[in-house]
Amino acid sequence: MSDHSLLMIPGPIEFSDEVLQANAHPSMSHVGAPFINVFGESLELLRKVFVSEDAQPLVIAGSGTLGWDIVAANITERGDNVLVLHTGYFGDSFAECFETYGVTATQLKAAIGERPTSDQVEAALKERKYKLVSITHVDTSTGVLSDVKLISEVVRRVSPDTLIVVDGVCSVGGEELLFDEWGVDIAITASQKAIGVPPGLSISAFSKRAISTFNSRTTPPSSYFASLKKWLPIMQAYESRKPMYFATPPVQLIYALHASLKKITERPMSERFQLHKDASNKVKSAVRELGLKQVPTQDQFAANTMTAVYLPEGLTLPDVLPKLSQKGIIFAGGLHREIATKYFRIGHMGITATDSGRNDLDKAIQGLKEVLSEATQKH
Amino acid sequence: MSDHSLLMIPGPIEFSDEVLQANAHPSMSHVGAPFINVFGESLELLRKVFVSEDAQPLVIAGSGTLGWDIVAANITERGDNVLVLHTGYFGDSFAECFETYGVTATQLKAAIGERPTSDQVEAALKERKYKLVSITHVDTSTGVLSDVKLISEVVRRVSPDTLIVVDGVCSVGGEELLFDEWGVDIAITASQKAIGVPPGLSISAFSKRAISTFNSRTTPPSSYFASLKKWLPIMQAYESRKPMYFATPPVQLIYALHASLKKITERPMSERFQLHKDASNKVKSAVRELGLKQVPTQDQFAANTMTAVYLPEGLTLPDVLPKLSQKGIIFAGGLHREIATKYFRIGHMGITATDSGRNDLDKAIQGLKEVLSEATQKH
Repeated sequence: MSDHSLLMIPGPIEFSDEVLQANAHPSMSHVGAPFINVFGESLELLRKVFVSEDAQPLVIAGSGTLGWDIVAANITERGDNVLVLHTGYFGDSFAECFETYGVTATQLKAAIGERPTSDQVEAALKERKYKLVSITHVDTSTGVLSDVKLISEVVRRVSPDTLIVVDGVCSVGGEELLFDEWGVDIAITASQKAIGVPPGLSISAFSKRAISTFNSRTTPPSSYFASLKKWLPIMQAYESRKPMYFATPPVQLIYALHASLKKITERPMSERFQLHKDASNKVKSAVRELGLKQVPTQDQFAANTMTAVYLPEGLTLPDVLPKLSQKGIIFAGGLHREIATKYFRIGHMGITATDSGRNDLDKAIQGLKEVLSEATQKH
Repeated sequence: MSDHSLLMIPGPIEFSDEVLQANAHPSMSHVGAPFINVFGESLELLRKVFVSEDAQPLVIAGSGTLGWDIVAANITERGDNVLVLHTGYFGDSFAECFETYGVTATQLKAAIGERPTSDQVEAALKERKYKLVSITHVDTSTGVLSDVKLISEVVRRVSPDTLIVVDGVCSVGGEELLFDEWGVDIAITASQKAIGVPPGLSISAFSKRAISTFNSRTTPPSSYFASLKKWLPIMQAYESRKPMYFATPPVQLIYALHASLKKITERPMSERFQLHKDASNKVKSAVRELGLKQVPTQDQFAANTMTAVYLPEGLTLPDVLPKLSQKGIIFAGGLHREIATKYFRIGHMGITATDSGRNDLDKAIQGLKEVLSEATQKH
């Protein structure tokens, strides 16, 4: 598995051989006891990853994007109001998803590299009643980290009935996220980021309060494939080790998920969060030493799962990314439309952050140094 | 890969080592040239599988079920009428999916093991104008095969504006389905059946007419994740080998799909359809010799991808399936609620049907003979 380039984009990330091997599991019946055990145990292990006692985890074939539909089609109803805290591209998209289902999404937008302040959130909550507030934990387009704990406190204090929804696609399993302790109601994520499993799974967790909001809706869910009415009994059946069918689960990906979760939960989550912080600090120090400016405007706004970096004056993406690729290192280009050509993104999640024996970070930093030095000399 | 039980349920099916290996592909960027080539070529190869010159193929992370949402949320609009030809469980479910999106689904129901006649379809079409007619090509709950060609002719003649939608989840890649020649507008399927790829992909094909129906809708698509407005440009970008992002594609599953499609399209599709017919005939002959009655009431109603068989008088599923499982052979129980405990299902698709060197069919038939003989002696 060593002859491919080192993939250090903000997802998909590098996967362990163990996880890839599990993804090649021979075909198993989706309603047979061996697979049911693996799925059931995966749900139990996910609760540990979300740091929750009793949240309901969901694992459905799809992508991170599907998580938005699950929230919009089940938790909100036509005519509801939601507040979307915007720290980049993914706020706009989540808002668009809500609007698709007839929900009015008000965005509280921050400048690029910034995040809405708690005072702004408080003011917005006092202006109107919102069914839920959504927070992008790490916006992959800017690398901005939201302070979920702080925002959650504000929401609970100012508008206690408002649900707290965390888009944790680029955070769950990497950034500290304490579902129960911080009073989160829903967190959604995907397999291919800090959870370390090939893309193809929408993964989420719902608090009892979120489930009871769902149960008290007056209209049926507005999606069939994303309906919690369909999926909740299925997840409960798997966890009680009983067969039940709605749609064929992605069997091999669930084996891969199980392999990754077993490994992740061998150690305390706090240790894993710290390893991601350490990896991030290492990358950010190197970037700083190279004289590069990050997209997040303050250190405490910067994600630990990725780093978004402006190109040095006078260089373009084609000066940098293809040269890195020639050295076997893949970084990502820009995603935020307004600055897309001016910055690049480095992912440092999963085994790249936690398995120091791989030397991924050193290799990437060294490659970046060489490429920038060569590119600058040329100019 | 030989120490697992032989999986002969109507999906997931057995996967080749080549396909499973591809599903363990090291992590690749979803917007990098190597993966874009693989995705783009997979779309081109899919057109061959659907036997179409210019249908638009779609491959999205999800399950077969998601295909229904793609149709209901993009092709129909609130208030539309559709006609669902019902040959089992999956007709009810597709109808329920339509209703979720505010579409009125009229079902033309056949008795268990039967299918609506062309006269009944003609009469129904003359009674009311339908936006589309849906046909379950093979209903996995009954093993009933629909005559898509015949129904399609009737629809084109009686109600030429009505779109023809084929639920080909248990058929595409196994049953003869000539998308262009038969005038099919939409066919949906999933990866884990006759296409021979682990579950986790919703695969579909849309005719130019279906796309233009979509383009002329007066309301926006009623799903975000399943929106053709989002996905059509993505598929077109992959096929023209350009990077474009909406949601992260299931990279490893696409490599697996590519491996399977390369293999499938090495030989003419007509040959593959014939191999599935031969496999089916072999299983059905054996079942007949054992004195067992099939669920489909007539031979020409019986699918070639699977066989649904009533238990012999006096035997129950626990007398048969666990005993087969002890011999390393997995068949499926019943799925149709009204007869669920009275029948079992055998899948014979993909390498189980096409690779005679595996001896899957002989092994399964031999196992079934032994188990029935032992169980009957006991009684």
